[in-house]
Amino acid sequence: MKHGIVKALIFAVAHSMPYVAMVQAADPLPSWNEGAPKKAIVEFVSKVTKEGGPGFVPPANRIATFDNDGTLWAEQPMYVQLLFALDRVKALAPQHPEWKDKEPFASLLKGDVKGALAGGEPAIFQIVMATHAGMTTDEFEKLVTDWIATAKHPLTKKPYTEMLYQPMLEVLAYLRANGFKTFIASGGGVEFMRPWVEKAYGIPPEQVVGSSGKLKFDLRDGTPTLMKLPELHFFDDKAGKPVAIQTFIGHRPIAAFGNSDGDLQMLQWTCGGSGARFCLYVHHTDAVREWAYDRQAHIGQLDKGLDEAKAKGWTVVDMKQDWKKVFAFENP
Amino acid sequence: MKHGIVKALIFAVAHSMPYVAMVQAADPLPSWNEGAPKKAIVEFVSKVTKEGGPGFVPPANRIATFDNDGTLWAEQPMYVQLLFALDRVKALAPQHPEWKDKEPFASLLKGDVKGALAGGEPAIFQIVMATHAGMTTDEFEKLVTDWIATAKHPLTKKPYTEMLYQPMLEVLAYLRANGFKTFIASGGGVEFMRPWVEKAYGIPPEQVVGSSGKLKFDLRDGTPTLMKLPELHFFDDKAGKPVAIQTFIGHRPIAAFGNSDGDLQMLQWTCGGSGARFCLYVHHTDAVREWAYDRQAHIGQLDKGLDEAKAKGWTVVDMKQDWKKVFAFENP
Repeated sequence: MKHGIVKALIFAVAHSMPYVAMVQAADPLPSWNEGAPKKAIVEFVSKVTKEGGPGFVPPANRIATFDNDGTLWAEQPMYVQLLFALDRVKALAPQHPEWKDKEPFASLLKGDVKGALAGGEPAIFQIVMATHAGMTTDEFEKLVTDWIATAKHPLTKKPYTEMLYQPMLEVLAYLRANGFKTFIASGGGVEFMRPWVEKAYGIPPEQVVGSSGKLKFDLRDGTPTLMKLPELHFFDDKAGKPVAIQTFIGHRPIAAFGNSDGDLQMLQWTCGGSGARFCLYVHHTDAVREWAYDRQAHIGQLDKGLDEAKAKGWTVVDMKQDWKKVFAFENP
Repeated sequence: MKHGIVKALIFAVAHSMPYVAMVQAADPLPSWNEGAPKKAIVEFVSKVTKEGGPGFVPPANRIATFDNDGTLWAEQPMYVQLLFALDRVKALAPQHPEWKDKEPFASLLKGDVKGALAGGEPAIFQIVMATHAGMTTDEFEKLVTDWIATAKHPLTKKPYTEMLYQPMLEVLAYLRANGFKTFIASGGGVEFMRPWVEKAYGIPPEQVVGSSGKLKFDLRDGTPTLMKLPELHFFDDKAGKPVAIQTFIGHRPIAAFGNSDGDLQMLQWTCGGSGARFCLYVHHTDAVREWAYDRQAHIGQLDKGLDEAKAKGWTVVDMKQDWKKVFAFENP
């Protein structure tokens, strides 16, 4: 065993760091093209980790929050959780003969997704409540686990857990290797994300902040259960994001990553604090490898956020220009 | 450097464990007398950490939740958070001339705490809302930090952060050294606990589950703030505990520690799962070193829980008999 390695091991142990952090490859962000965003990420991390430096942040405060849909994985042609709900409507239809004459279910069951969603948020809310409640949390977890293991994206035909943005996976790993604790802060449901996020992103269930439905604790023949009720507990979007971050995490993040106006308040809250701060928007500009959408989008609208990012000097990733690769499955 | 130490270091690094876990002292629970509770704790930890054994639990699922008041620190003669609120009423009184004629404030300001609290939960709720809202989360954090640094327990005259149960601090450290993630799950307010729990218990703010008030995100002259509103968001007690644990943590704990009927559902939920489980009640039996109370107590009532613990074979700590020391400040 070489002396240098032993020294590195001792250092790693003394600092409770995994060895991997000590022997990190020269380029921690290989899927990023050289450019302003990559440079900004590396400079921020260097600044907050430089002990004795003016931007140093102790590890306990190195909290980074990531939106999920459109920031860590694809959200087009619609949110994955909504696609899950649509599949559940089909599976549950035999038990709900009344859905044949009741919107938005009637349109859905005829294959007219667009018609079903024409009802806007109330229609989506009905679909989600009909498919995400009336069972225990354990039962729901199993449904999600089974579905995510087999369902395929309608256009790419890839499993959803391959629709992750490779450059963002590198950012997650890079931050963690530098003592950050990484959290999801998503408008999506916590119970929908927790079964698969650890494998996908290396983020454990307890570091997922999201929307939630009400739960009810009950003893059923002496067996404790948590029933999912068809009522919203908290909607973790827009001004709800900083609120949920404070309630769940209790720290103001020092870095936040989003892609839509739904993330704007999270970024304002994060970069409104003192000391070194980092806010990043993923701008979907790549109609070939992914999708191109922003100010006019129905899903993942980025309008006010784009203006504010420019005004405040936040980092904006031009997906087409800044990412060497979007998905891991692309040819090199 | 000895070969054995290098091997231990490599093992520790490979398992991302701090070295301290590898060279732990022979007795991890020195403030516990030999007896059934100590034996049960050690046996449970040995069982879930023995790789290949029938009770093995992977580290990701080693989640332990602890009630705070009466389980980790003293809750008599009344909850510390309530004592904080009473001090805040006095401090705020000059700005509230109307309190002179309004209960429960009027009694409080005359020094009649008992009279003020005679109004029961609604009175307490009024006192908490009047003192925990109408400011930003940052402002509240500073109030708590300043108060906890200087306030003294009314009877022992010790700082509240010395009123921690030494044997429970040892359990926290012992669990963490064995790959557990330790959480607080308290009826107390998250914003009241988070400023000091890391220093007191080694539990970071993001691992605190508790009651919470509603928050409102606002831009004040362009500066993002989170205002504390005088409305309850969630009350983390009784059946609320498993609900909050699921919502915040998203794991069912494998070990839970409480002291009152308010913890009963948390223990039911924890020990109702499959595989190795551990539930423990601290029974306050020591009127000399601490307080003796259970079935008839107004604060920290332990009645149904005591019966269920016996019926289910949960561990019940007889504080007087099982703890060599209650507080660290006692003479050895």
